[in-house]
Amino acid sequence: MTAPPPEFALIARHFRPLAGRGALDLLDDAALIAPPPGRELVLTADAMVAGVHFLPHDPPDLIARKLLRVNLSDLAAKGAVPLGYLMTLSLPRDTTDEWLAAFVRGLAADQAEFGVTLLGGDTTSTPGPASLSLTILGHVAPGTMVRRAGARAGDGVWVTGTIGDGALGLAAAQGRLADPTGHLLDRYRLPRPRVGLALAGIASAALDVSDGLVQDLGHLCRAAGLTAQIDAAAVPLSDAARAAGPDWLPACLTGGDDYEILCAVPPDREAALRAASAAAGIPVTRIGAFETGPAEVVVTDATGAPMAFARTGWSHF
Amino acid sequence: MTAPPPEFALIARHFRPLAGRGALDLLDDAALIAPPPGRELVLTADAMVAGVHFLPHDPPDLIARKLLRVNLSDLAAKGAVPLGYLMTLSLPRDTTDEWLAAFVRGLAADQAEFGVTLLGGDTTSTPGPASLSLTILGHVAPGTMVRRAGARAGDGVWVTGTIGDGALGLAAAQGRLADPTGHLLDRYRLPRPRVGLALAGIASAALDVSDGLVQDLGHLCRAAGLTAQIDAAAVPLSDAARAAGPDWLPACLTGGDDYEILCAVPPDREAALRAASAAAGIPVTRIGAFETGPAEVVVTDATGAPMAFARTGWSHF
Repeated sequence: MTAPPPEFALIARHFRPLAGRGALDLLDDAALIAPPPGRELVLTADAMVAGVHFLPHDPPDLIARKLLRVNLSDLAAKGAVPLGYLMTLSLPRDTTDEWLAAFVRGLAADQAEFGVTLLGGDTTSTPGPASLSLTILGHVAPGTMVRRAGARAGDGVWVTGTIGDGALGLAAAQGRLADPTGHLLDRYRLPRPRVGLALAGIASAALDVSDGLVQDLGHLCRAAGLTAQIDAAAVPLSDAARAAGPDWLPACLTGGDDYEILCAVPPDREAALRAASAAAGIPVTRIGAFETGPAEVVVTDATGAPMAFARTGWSHF
Repeated sequence: MTAPPPEFALIARHFRPLAGRGALDLLDDAALIAPPPGRELVLTADAMVAGVHFLPHDPPDLIARKLLRVNLSDLAAKGAVPLGYLMTLSLPRDTTDEWLAAFVRGLAADQAEFGVTLLGGDTTSTPGPASLSLTILGHVAPGTMVRRAGARAGDGVWVTGTIGDGALGLAAAQGRLADPTGHLLDRYRLPRPRVGLALAGIASAALDVSDGLVQDLGHLCRAAGLTAQIDAAAVPLSDAARAAGPDWLPACLTGGDDYEILCAVPPDREAALRAASAAAGIPVTRIGAFETGPAEVVVTDATGAPMAFARTGWSHF
C-alpha cells in the first residue's frame, strides 16, 4: 500500500531534475509562484502531435527542444522575459526509458540556454501518436507587451534573421532539395527563438513567423487594417537558401517554421531597433512598409511586379 | 492573400465567446494578465485522451466540463481561487462543427459556474484520438497554499462529500452495477470540484482524491512520513453507494474519479473547518487520523481488523 505507482516513479526519475523554483519538486499537485512584483504575465500554449508537427522517429531531444522553443518564440515576439513552463505529455505505452531520458536531456539543455524551468504538468498514456502540450509564462513591464494590433501607416516591416530556411529544410528532409551544408535541415529541426530582442517601446506590433512570412504578415495587416508592401529582394535569405536558387523564393516567403520575429517599427524608432539588435546579437532587416489600404500583403519582385502565390502559409487544422 | 485559414475561422467562431479579460479576444499570440496584487499564483495542468480518460462518443459538453473540473479540483484542494485557463486541443480531422459547439457550451456553463475564463491556447489536428490539455491558474494569499506535505501526528483525516460514487459510476457505465437513480453515473461523468472551501490556515495538508482514496491518502503519508489510520465505516458514502452493498466498499475506497478533497486537520482547527464547511455548503467528515509510524495507510473494518485491497488506486500510465 506504500509503493508509488509507476506513473510517479517515471515523473520522479526523469522530470524532477528539470523542476525549478515554484515547482515544489513536482511533488505537489500544483506549482506556486510569486509573480515578479510590478510585472504583467504573458502566457501562451502550443501543442505538437507526432506525425503532424514532428516525425515519430525524430530524435527525442530535438522534439523536446522544438516544443519548448516554439513557445519561447511566441514570448520573444511579445517582448516578454521567459519565466517557466508547464507541460503535458500523452505518450504511447511503448515509449522507452531511453526516449524519455533523451527528451529530458533536450529540455535541460534549453532550460540552461533560455533561463526557464519546469513548473509542473501531467503525463498520461495514449493509444495514438505522442501528443505534447506546453504552456509557457513570461513577464513584461506593465503596458509594454507588443501586440499583433498596432502597426501604423508608414511603419517599416522588419524581420529578424533569415526567412525560408525552415521551409527549405523540410524540402531537404523530404529529399526534394539538396542541403550540402546541412544548414537548412538544422534550421527546420531546431527553431532559434529570438529571445532577448528588447522590442518593448520600439515595435508597434509583432508576432513570430511560424506559419509563413506572407500569412503571418497578413495577421498584422488584418489587426491594423493596413496594406503591407514588401520587396521580395529585400527579404533576408541565408547562403544556403540563396544557393537553392530563385525557384525556391516562393517557398521561402510562404513556408512555415521560421520562428523569426516579424514586426512593425515607426521610422523614428529605427535607431532604437538597431541598437536593440546590436545589444542582443540578433540581426534585423527592413523588408517593406505598412500603408493605408485594404488589409492585405502585396509582395513585389525585382521588377516591381506583384507576385502571386499558390499558397500563402500553413494551416494546422 | 487575405482570407484567414480555416484554423483561425474555427477558433474565432467557437472559442472567442469564452475569452475573458487578458485573452485579447484570442486575437494575439499570447494572453496578458496583471496578477492580483499581493497574491501568489497556483498553476496546474492535466491532460485527457479519448479512449483513456473518456470515451470518444461521450457527450462533448461533459468531456469539456470534466477537463476543466479536474483542474479546478486541484486548485480547490490547494485552497486557491480560480483565475483562468489555457487549453490545447488536438482533434481528429473528422471532428464536426456540432461537436465543437457542444464542447464550447460545456465550457461556457462551467465558466459561469466557477468564475473562470479562457485565456488562450492552441488547436491542432491529430491522426489519433482526441488529446486535450488544460493549464489552470489560481491565486492564494502569500504563504497559504495548502501543500501535500505538512500533516502532523494527531491531525484528523478529513474528506469532503462522499467517496466511491465515481468508481461505482464507472461500474454502472460498464453494466457491472445497477444504478436505478442515475446518481453514480452522473458523479462519474461530471466531477464536482469543491471550489470555495476555505482551507488556507485550517488544513495542514491536502490534495484532491482523483486516483482513489487509499492511494491518494498514501501520498499525504509519504509526504509527511506518517501512518494514516482510517475507519472504513466512517468513510461517507452516498445513498446510491450504500445501496450497492458492502461488496462494493473496497471499490469505493480504492476507485478513482471522486474529486473530493482529502485533508489533514489539527484537532484545534476542527471548529474552523466546520465553519468553513458551513459557509461553503460543502460537507466534511472525519474518517481517521495520522499517527507516528511507517508511511502507509491502514484501513480497519467494522470489527477493527485491517482490510487488504487487490489494488489501491488508478495509475494513468
